Amino acid sequence: MLTRLESAPPGSQLPLEAVLDTLPWNQDGLITAIAQQHDSGEVLMLAWMNRAAFAETLSTGQACYWSRSRHSLWRKGETSGCRQRVIDVRFDCDGDAVLLLVDQLGGACHTGRRSCFYNGVRGDRVEVLDAPLPALPKPISAKETP
Amino acid sequence: MLTRLESAPPGSQLPLEAVLDTLPWNQDGLITAIAQQHDSGEVLMLAWMNRAAFAETLSTGQACYWSRSRHSLWRKGETSGCRQRVIDVRFDCDGDAVLLLVDQLGGACHTGRRSCFYNGVRGDRVEVLDAPLPALPKPISAKETP
Repeated sequence: MLTRLESAPPGSQLPLEAVLDTLPWNQDGLITAIAQQHDSGEVLMLAWMNRAAFAETLSTGQACYWSRSRHSLWRKGETSGCRQRVIDVRFDCDGDAVLLLVDQLGGACHTGRRSCFYNGVRGDRVEVLDAPLPALPKPISAKETP
Repeated sequence: MLTRLESAPPGSQLPLEAVLDTLPWNQDGLITAIAQQHDSGEVLMLAWMNRAAFAETLSTGQACYWSRSRHSLWRKGETSGCRQRVIDVRFDCDGDAVLLLVDQLGGACHTGRRSCFYNGVRGDRVEVLDAPLPALPKPISAKETP
Protein backbone atom coordinates (compact mmCIF):
# COMPACT_ATOMS: atom_id res chain seq x y z
CA MET A 1 0.00 0.00 0.00
CA LEU A 2 2.86 2.38 0.82
CA THR A 3 3.91 2.31 -2.80
CA ARG A 4 0.68 4.20 -3.60
CA LEU A 5 2.39 7.22 -2.12
CA GLU A 6 5.36 7.01 -4.51
CA SER A 7 3.91 9.56 -6.90
CA ALA A 8 1.86 11.43 -4.30
CA PRO A 9 2.65 15.04 -3.39
CA PRO A 10 3.77 16.13 0.08
CA GLY A 11 0.86 16.12 2.53
CA SER A 12 -0.76 13.01 1.05
CA GLN A 13 -1.74 10.51 3.76
CA LEU A 14 -2.70 6.91 4.38
CA PRO A 15 -3.97 5.30 7.61
CA LEU A 16 -1.05 3.94 9.65
CA GLU A 17 -2.78 0.68 10.59
CA ALA A 18 -3.57 -0.11 6.97
CA VAL A 19 0.05 0.64 6.04
CA LEU A 20 1.27 -1.68 8.82
CA ASP A 21 -1.10 -4.43 7.62
CA THR A 22 0.54 -4.37 4.21
CA LEU A 23 4.23 -3.74 4.99
CA PRO A 24 6.60 -6.28 3.44
CA TRP A 25 7.54 -7.85 6.79
CA ASN A 26 10.22 -10.46 6.08
CA GLN A 27 9.78 -14.20 6.64
CA ASP A 28 10.45 -13.65 10.34
CA GLY A 29 7.89 -10.83 10.54
CA LEU A 30 10.55 -8.13 10.78
CA ILE A 31 11.58 -4.90 9.12
CA THR A 32 14.95 -3.21 9.37
CA ALA A 33 15.24 -0.22 11.70
CA ILE A 34 17.91 2.46 11.58
CA ALA A 35 18.38 4.69 14.62
CA GLN A 36 19.82 8.13 13.93
CA GLN A 37 20.58 10.89 16.42
CA HIS A 38 18.01 13.52 15.49
CA ASP A 39 20.18 16.63 15.76
CA SER A 40 23.73 15.53 14.88
CA GLY A 41 22.63 13.11 12.16
CA GLU A 42 24.93 10.38 13.47
CA VAL A 43 23.77 6.91 12.47
CA LEU A 44 23.74 5.04 15.77
CA MET A 45 22.74 1.45 15.05
CA LEU A 46 20.79 -0.94 12.89
CA ALA A 47 18.27 -3.29 14.45
CA TRP A 48 15.00 -5.07 13.66
CA MET A 49 11.37 -4.52 14.56
CA ASN A 50 8.32 -6.71 14.49
CA ARG A 51 4.85 -5.24 14.64
CA ALA A 52 4.70 -5.45 18.43
CA ALA A 53 8.04 -3.61 18.77
CA PHE A 54 6.82 -0.96 16.37
CA ALA A 55 3.55 -0.52 18.28
CA GLU A 56 5.35 -0.27 21.61
CA THR A 57 7.82 2.27 20.20
CA LEU A 58 4.94 4.49 19.09
CA SER A 59 2.91 4.12 22.28
CA THR A 60 5.80 4.73 24.70
CA GLY A 61 7.96 7.11 22.66
CA GLN A 62 10.98 4.95 23.55
CA ALA A 63 12.67 2.75 20.95
CA CYS A 64 11.78 -0.92 21.23
CA TYR A 65 13.24 -3.51 18.85
CA TRP A 66 13.04 -7.25 18.32
CA SER A 67 16.10 -9.12 19.49
CA ARG A 68 16.83 -11.82 16.92
CA SER A 69 19.25 -13.53 19.30
CA ARG A 70 17.02 -13.50 22.38
CA HIS A 71 13.74 -13.87 20.44
CA SER A 72 12.09 -11.23 22.55
CA LEU A 73 11.21 -7.56 22.60
CA TRP A 74 14.28 -5.44 23.27
CA ARG A 75 13.45 -2.28 25.14
CA LYS A 76 16.56 -0.34 24.26
CA GLY A 77 18.37 0.86 27.36
CA GLU A 78 16.20 -1.07 29.80
CA THR A 79 19.25 -2.48 31.56
CA SER A 80 22.02 -0.11 30.42
CA GLY A 81 20.03 3.09 30.83
CA CYS A 82 21.03 4.09 27.29
CA ARG A 83 17.52 4.76 26.13
CA GLN A 84 16.38 6.27 22.85
CA ARG A 85 13.62 8.84 23.00
CA VAL A 86 11.89 8.80 19.65
CA ILE A 87 11.53 12.15 17.89
CA ASP A 88 10.31 11.00 14.49
CA VAL A 89 9.54 7.78 12.60
CA ARG A 90 9.78 7.39 8.83
CA PHE A 91 9.24 4.53 6.39
CA ASP A 92 11.18 4.16 3.17
CA CYS A 93 9.54 3.98 -0.25
CA ASP A 94 8.79 0.27 -0.18
CA GLY A 95 8.24 -0.01 3.55
CA ASP A 96 10.82 -2.65 4.43
CA ALA A 97 12.87 -0.21 6.48
CA VAL A 98 12.08 2.34 9.16
CA LEU A 99 14.19 5.29 10.23
CA LEU A 100 13.94 6.35 13.87
CA LEU A 101 15.15 9.85 14.67
CA VAL A 102 16.01 9.58 18.33
CA ASP A 103 17.61 11.34 21.23
CA GLN A 104 20.18 8.80 22.42
CA LEU A 105 21.14 8.79 26.07
CA GLY A 106 24.76 7.62 26.42
CA GLY A 107 26.03 5.11 23.89
CA ALA A 108 23.83 3.21 21.45
CA CYS A 109 26.37 0.38 21.13
CA HIS A 110 26.64 -2.49 23.60
CA THR A 111 30.40 -1.80 23.61
CA GLY A 112 29.70 1.58 25.21
CA ARG A 113 30.50 3.52 22.07
CA ARG A 114 28.14 6.23 20.89
CA SER A 115 27.52 4.48 17.54
CA CYS A 116 27.83 0.85 16.50
CA PHE A 117 29.54 1.99 13.28
CA TYR A 118 33.01 2.48 14.75
CA ASN A 119 34.94 0.14 12.43
CA GLY A 120 36.29 2.14 9.49
CA VAL A 121 37.71 0.62 6.31
CA ARG A 122 41.17 2.10 5.81
CA GLY A 123 42.80 0.68 2.69
CA ASP A 124 43.22 -3.07 3.24
CA ARG A 125 42.60 -2.77 6.99
CA VAL A 126 39.65 -2.24 9.30
CA GLU A 127 40.41 0.25 12.05
CA VAL A 128 38.65 1.12 15.29
CA LEU A 129 37.70 4.81 15.09
CA ASP A 130 35.99 5.48 18.42
CA ALA A 131 36.42 4.77 22.11
CA PRO A 132 33.64 3.85 24.54
CA LEU A 133 31.96 6.71 26.35
CA PRO A 134 32.21 7.02 30.11
CA ALA A 135 29.48 4.92 31.75
CA LEU A 136 26.22 6.68 32.51
CA PRO A 137 25.76 7.59 36.16
CA LYS A 138 23.30 5.26 37.83
CA PRO A 139 19.90 6.78 38.50
CA ILE A 140 19.36 7.88 42.09
CA SER A 141 16.81 5.11 42.62
CA ALA A 142 19.44 2.50 41.75
CA LYS A 143 22.11 3.87 44.09
CA GLU A 144 22.74 2.18 47.36
CA THR A 145 21.63 4.11 50.38
CA PRO A 146 24.41 4.82 52.87
CA MET B 1 36.52 -11.75 13.91
CA LEU B 2 35.24 -8.16 14.00
CA THR B 3 34.03 -8.71 17.54
CA ARG B 4 37.70 -8.92 18.56
CA LEU B 5 37.75 -5.17 18.12
CA GLU B 6 34.90 -4.58 20.58
CA SER B 7 37.22 -3.82 23.45
CA ALA B 8 40.11 -2.55 21.34
CA PRO B 9 41.21 1.09 21.53
CA PRO B 10 41.01 3.50 18.58
CA GLY B 11 43.72 2.77 16.01
CA SER B 12 43.52 -1.02 16.45
CA GLN B 13 43.37 -2.80 13.11
CA LEU B 14 42.49 -6.08 11.43
CA PRO B 15 43.09 -7.14 7.82
CA LEU B 16 40.03 -6.30 5.68
CA GLU B 17 40.04 -9.57 3.75
CA ALA B 18 40.08 -11.61 6.96
CA VAL B 19 37.20 -9.52 8.30
CA LEU B 20 35.23 -10.07 5.09
CA ASP B 21 35.88 -13.83 5.31
CA THR B 22 34.23 -13.94 8.70
CA LEU B 23 31.38 -11.41 8.41
CA PRO B 24 27.97 -12.81 9.36
CA TRP B 25 26.63 -12.72 5.78
CA ASN B 26 23.00 -13.81 5.92
CA GLN B 27 21.61 -16.96 4.32
CA ASP B 28 21.56 -15.15 0.97
CA GLY B 29 25.17 -13.99 1.38
CA LEU B 30 24.16 -10.40 2.09
CA ILE B 31 24.70 -7.68 4.66
CA THR B 32 22.60 -4.58 5.13
CA ALA B 33 23.95 -1.32 3.75
CA ILE B 34 22.90 2.17 4.81
CA ALA B 35 23.80 5.09 2.56
CA GLN B 36 24.16 8.45 4.28
CA GLN B 37 25.00 11.81 2.71
CA HIS B 38 28.46 12.49 4.13
CA ASP B 39 28.08 16.20 4.91
CA SER B 40 24.39 16.76 5.70
CA GLY B 41 23.98 13.45 7.57
CA GLU B 42 20.75 12.66 5.72
CA VAL B 43 20.01 8.93 5.63
CA LEU B 44 19.37 8.30 1.95
CA MET B 45 18.47 4.63 1.57
CA LEU B 46 18.85 1.11 2.83
CA ALA B 47 20.03 -1.63 0.50
CA TRP B 48 21.96 -4.90 0.51
CA MET B 49 25.46 -5.94 -0.47
CA ASN B 50 27.05 -9.27 -1.22
CA ARG B 51 30.81 -9.68 -1.20
CA ALA B 52 31.11 -8.87 -4.91
CA ALA B 53 29.14 -5.65 -4.49
CA PHE B 54 31.30 -4.69 -1.54
CA ALA B 55 34.49 -5.36 -3.48
CA GLU B 56 33.28 -3.36 -6.47
CA THR B 57 32.26 -0.46 -4.24
CA LEU B 58 35.75 -0.31 -2.77
CA SER B 59 37.57 -0.72 -6.06
CA THR B 60 35.53 1.85 -8.01
CA GLY B 61 34.66 4.29 -5.23
CA GLN B 62 31.02 4.22 -6.47
CA ALA B 63 28.31 2.48 -4.45
CA CYS B 64 27.34 -0.92 -5.82
CA TYR B 65 24.64 -3.02 -4.15
CA TRP B 66 22.98 -6.37 -4.69
CA SER B 67 19.47 -6.12 -6.10
CA ARG B 68 17.34 -8.73 -4.34
CA SER B 69 14.58 -8.32 -6.91
CA ARG B 70 16.78 -8.50 -10.01
CA HIS B 71 19.31 -10.94 -8.52
CA SER B 72 22.19 -8.96 -9.94
CA LEU B 73 24.73 -6.32 -9.01
CA TRP B 74 23.11 -2.90 -8.85
CA ARG B 75 25.52 -0.16 -9.82
CA LYS B 76 23.66 2.70 -8.21
CA GLY B 77 22.89 5.45 -10.71
CA GLU B 78 24.03 3.48 -13.74
CA THR B 79 20.83 4.28 -15.60
CA SER B 80 19.47 7.26 -13.63
CA GLY B 81 22.78 9.09 -13.28
CA CYS B 82 22.11 9.41 -9.54
CA ARG B 83 25.44 7.93 -8.50
CA GLN B 84 26.90 7.74 -5.03
CA ARG B 85 30.57 8.57 -4.68
CA VAL B 86 31.82 6.77 -1.61
CA ILE B 87 33.62 8.89 0.98
CA ASP B 88 33.89 6.40 3.84
CA VAL B 89 32.87 2.84 4.69
CA ARG B 90 32.19 1.57 8.23
CA PHE B 91 31.10 -1.74 9.72
CA ASP B 92 29.00 -2.00 12.84
CA CYS B 93 30.09 -3.90 15.95
CA ASP B 94 28.96 -7.32 14.80
CA GLY B 95 29.57 -6.77 11.11
CA ASP B 96 26.12 -7.48 9.73
CA ALA B 97 25.67 -3.89 8.59
CA VAL B 98 27.77 -1.43 6.67
CA LEU B 99 27.42 2.35 6.61
CA LEU B 100 28.42 4.11 3.41
CA LEU B 101 29.11 7.81 3.70
CA VAL B 102 28.51 9.03 0.18
CA ASP B 103 28.17 12.08 -1.99
CA GLN B 104 24.79 11.54 -3.64
CA LEU B 105 24.21 13.00 -7.08
CA GLY B 106 20.50 13.88 -7.46
CA GLY B 107 18.01 11.70 -5.64
CA ALA B 108 18.83 8.39 -3.98
CA CYS B 109 15.23 7.17 -4.28
CA HIS B 110 13.77 5.60 -7.41
CA THR B 111 10.83 8.01 -6.98
CA GLY B 112 13.19 10.91 -7.63
CA ARG B 113 13.23 12.05 -4.03
CA ARG B 114 16.48 12.82 -2.30
CA SER B 115 15.96 10.14 0.37
CA CYS B 116 13.84 6.99 0.38
CA PHE B 117 12.65 7.86 3.91
CA TYR B 118 10.00 10.36 2.87
CA ASN B 119 7.00 8.71 4.61
CA GLY B 120 6.56 10.20 8.08
CA VAL B 121 4.36 8.73 10.79
CA ARG B 122 2.00 11.50 11.94
CA GLY B 123 -0.32 10.23 14.66
CA ASP B 124 -2.44 7.47 13.12
CA ARG B 125 -1.49 8.49 9.57
CA VAL B 126 1.51 8.12 7.28
CA GLU B 127 2.25 11.33 5.40
CA VAL B 128 4.45 12.10 2.40
CA LEU B 129 7.03 14.64 3.54
CA ASP B 130 9.10 15.31 0.43
CA ALA B 131 8.65 15.94 -3.26
CA PRO B 132 10.80 14.52 -6.06
CA LEU B 133 13.79 16.58 -7.11
CA PRO B 134 14.00 18.01 -10.62
CA ALA B 135 15.48 15.38 -12.95
CA LEU B 136 19.22 15.49 -13.45
CA PRO B 137 20.31 17.02 -16.73
CA LYS B 138 21.34 14.33 -19.18
CA PRO B 139 25.05 14.10 -19.80
CA ILE B 140 26.19 15.73 -23.04
CA SER B 141 27.03 12.34 -24.51
CA ALA B 142 23.42 11.21 -24.04
CA LYS B 143 21.86 14.28 -25.66
CA GLU B 144 20.54 14.06 -29.15
CA THR B 145 22.51 15.98 -31.72
CA PRO B 146 20.51 18.51 -33.66
